[in-house]
Amino acid sequence: MNQGAPVLKIDLASSEAAYEQITSGLRTLLVAGQFRPGSQLPTVRELAMDLGVHHNTVAEAYRILADEGWLDLKRGRGATVVERPRPQATPESHARFSRRLQELVARAITEGVPRAAIVGELDGLTRKLQTGGIE
Amino acid sequence: MNQGAPVLKIDLASSEAAYEQITSGLRTLLVAGQFRPGSQLPTVRELAMDLGVHHNTVAEAYRILADEGWLDLKRGRGATVVERPRPQATPESHARFSRRLQELVARAITEGVPRAAIVGELDGLTRKLQTGGIE
Repeated sequence: MNQGAPVLKIDLASSEAAYEQITSGLRTLLVAGQFRPGSQLPTVRELAMDLGVHHNTVAEAYRILADEGWLDLKRGRGATVVERPRPQATPESHARFSRRLQELVARAITEGVPRAAIVGELDGLTRKLQTGGIE
Repeated sequence: MNQGAPVLKIDLASSEAAYEQITSGLRTLLVAGQFRPGSQLPTVRELAMDLGVHHNTVAEAYRILADEGWLDLKRGRGATVVERPRPQATPESHARFSRRLQELVARAITEGVPRAAIVGELDGLTRKLQTGGIE
């Protein structure tokens, strides 16, 4: 992204809104430690141009991530990644994760993704979580 | 659901559209074998009343599930669960599952769900997949 290479892709044909796709994609990169605290994200206009979306769409994603504590937004200075205090999970956020995980697997099975491939993905992610590959 | 007890809950405050929540929720129950082939789902109007949504919202969810091969819809005869041939997964459906799974975990971490709880959910689901608790 620093080299202007797009690291995010969005699918305009998806039923998921573009700002949600951008938010999810950036959040995944942030959680994976791809952007260290102090580093700068592209400006709203740069990223909007890269992705081919309206700049309001990117601005909305940046606002959500700022509200979540990932970014510091300063007019004219772009978006800076900040050290994020770990929030306390609510029982709802745990329950929501559990439900969404089941829904996601149900969808994959419906689409014919082989059980072994699904188990492989779950295992791979578990290992990453246990070895600190995801912060 | 046969007893009129709601098994689905939808969150009207969610950014996810109600028809998508109904589709995902029913798909998860179908994949978990909660409805055997031949059994009847509630009529569109019954379920719409139970959930407090417009009947078009439920009808849309039923149509999507019928397109996916889960339901047979006959005017005036409601929705019948059918034996579903397992489709061939495309590389896209596998890649999409992998990406969404990472996004889901990133979101849970952002919300403060403890790593151990996330690993527990992933493990539990892996076990269900391996022991046939999910078809």
